[in-house]
Amino acid sequence: MNLQTREHKLIEEIKQWTGDTGIGDDCAILPNGHLVTCDTLVEGTHFVTGQIDFADLGWKSVAVNLSDIAAMAGRPRQLVVSLTMPKMLPHLDFQKLYQAMIDCARAYRCQIIGGDLTAGPQLVITITCLGDVHEQGCLKRTSAKPGHVVVVTGDFGASAAGLWLLQAGESNCGKYSYLLERHCRPRPRLADAWSLVSKTGSAKAALMDASDGLADALVQISRGSGVGMEIDLDRLPIHSQTKEVAKPAQVDPLDWALYGGEDYELVGTVDPAIWNEFSKAPETENLFWAIGTVTEKSGVSAKGAGKAKMELDLLQSFQHF
Amino acid sequence: MNLQTREHKLIEEIKQWTGDTGIGDDCAILPNGHLVTCDTLVEGTHFVTGQIDFADLGWKSVAVNLSDIAAMAGRPRQLVVSLTMPKMLPHLDFQKLYQAMIDCARAYRCQIIGGDLTAGPQLVITITCLGDVHEQGCLKRTSAKPGHVVVVTGDFGASAAGLWLLQAGESNCGKYSYLLERHCRPRPRLADAWSLVSKTGSAKAALMDASDGLADALVQISRGSGVGMEIDLDRLPIHSQTKEVAKPAQVDPLDWALYGGEDYELVGTVDPAIWNEFSKAPETENLFWAIGTVTEKSGVSAKGAGKAKMELDLLQSFQHF
Repeated sequence: MNLQTREHKLIEEIKQWTGDTGIGDDCAILPNGHLVTCDTLVEGTHFVTGQIDFADLGWKSVAVNLSDIAAMAGRPRQLVVSLTMPKMLPHLDFQKLYQAMIDCARAYRCQIIGGDLTAGPQLVITITCLGDVHEQGCLKRTSAKPGHVVVVTGDFGASAAGLWLLQAGESNCGKYSYLLERHCRPRPRLADAWSLVSKTGSAKAALMDASDGLADALVQISRGSGVGMEIDLDRLPIHSQTKEVAKPAQVDPLDWALYGGEDYELVGTVDPAIWNEFSKAPETENLFWAIGTVTEKSGVSAKGAGKAKMELDLLQSFQHF
Repeated sequence: MNLQTREHKLIEEIKQWTGDTGIGDDCAILPNGHLVTCDTLVEGTHFVTGQIDFADLGWKSVAVNLSDIAAMAGRPRQLVVSLTMPKMLPHLDFQKLYQAMIDCARAYRCQIIGGDLTAGPQLVITITCLGDVHEQGCLKRTSAKPGHVVVVTGDFGASAAGLWLLQAGESNCGKYSYLLERHCRPRPRLADAWSLVSKTGSAKAALMDASDGLADALVQISRGSGVGMEIDLDRLPIHSQTKEVAKPAQVDPLDWALYGGEDYELVGTVDPAIWNEFSKAPETENLFWAIGTVTEKSGVSAKGAGKAKMELDLLQSFQHF
């Protein structure tokens, strides 16, 4: 069982060097209460030019940052865009990329206010997003408590399935447009995070986004909060198209769901009394699903789906680093 | 004569696409009055691993961002660091790089509060810096007025001379440590910018930093303010070591000074009545030099140094893009 990736270890070192114990959540919280987050997409690591459309890439590069603001139930306000790009990048591709970034920003009521352009051999997109804390508070990954209900939005593994389709050259197959959209045009779960924090305030829920996979998010919340979790694999939401594509890919859809990454769904824990009420709300108000329970005992164990009880292992996770 | 580089043209397009006319200064100004800026250093474009020490690179990557805050006379507060790095980067190099970033941040009383780590074939360092506007106001590049005195801090061409030494493999030559330091460890001119804005407030001076060269800065201020300039080349401060190294490099030191870039000095214009007083202050309070005059007629012309009167041409400038 491995609960720390190389990236986690380096972040621990950086926390020591800077003396800033706040480093490591989805966003940093400024002294004035604003939020800041930063995410980078690198050609060859996060995407392959030719496989993904430039307009999709532009949308995604903004959406993954907004997802970090959603992960703390914040409201995104301004974006700063640093583009490193090959000198030979056709102007039309640059235009598609940039205009899709503007489209995504506008769709979530925030604004690109500046940035930097520079030349380099690979396309590298670094976006910094500034936001405001929600008036009801800020949800951190360190607030899970024993007895909390473990909850998630949406479904898991769809982005990994979409990536498999792109890599297999099946991207023109309209049949799986849901999976391609989930990989190429993720929707930051801002409204869902706000609906949660409106019920819980800061103290009675924990939250993060599942950018590095559901298993990673569960482990991060557990470690950060000093608790454990028991997950019921039968309750993990997995889309029918994900299960269908897993067959030709010869992958267990549960592996995609747990370790695939890039689903940009929310993963959290909620006080059981609040969840008891919130879970009765219609889907228009509550898109969260319960998938397990927070325990005092550390470690994240999973059972169900016809498998023996197991501990989640982050070495299987999708790693951008 | 060319007064727009490819980068300037793309920034003009981005301003149109976003509808944000504020884009294009050294920092963006947020609705709450805070400043944001972002700068990227790319391996192969801005530095060559092996030529520059990782500690110098860490210092420089923070300093160039602080210089953008200085360019608006702001106070830097927080830094967000995105590092894209090869998986094979030795841990000791990572540590030297990161700790030098922390050193530079602390030297100027600001703090690294978060960021992103990701893998990629080249080292790419993107830093976003947040700052506060000075209590006396904010200096923009669009505030130059006919009759203003054109002023600069420090000296020009030293960074280009230092780069030439590094590229020529002469970096161990302690004789030119001033030039190497100017290239590898630039000092953001924060205190000088504050001393200027304290005298002028927002309305009676223009300012930017000379990251892309003195000529670029003069042209940017002229274009942004809808004015022109007459520069006296005999008054350009050029260090004796710069002139000395220009000989074996077979370069006109004036070309390094005007077009070399990366000096991270300040370039501005000041109301003549204020300059009349300010110029009498001792060097401990005023490190600016007068090098010319703002004119109504557009274009930046230069004379002196035994040359015929000429118009500055940005196609000769140092281009990171």
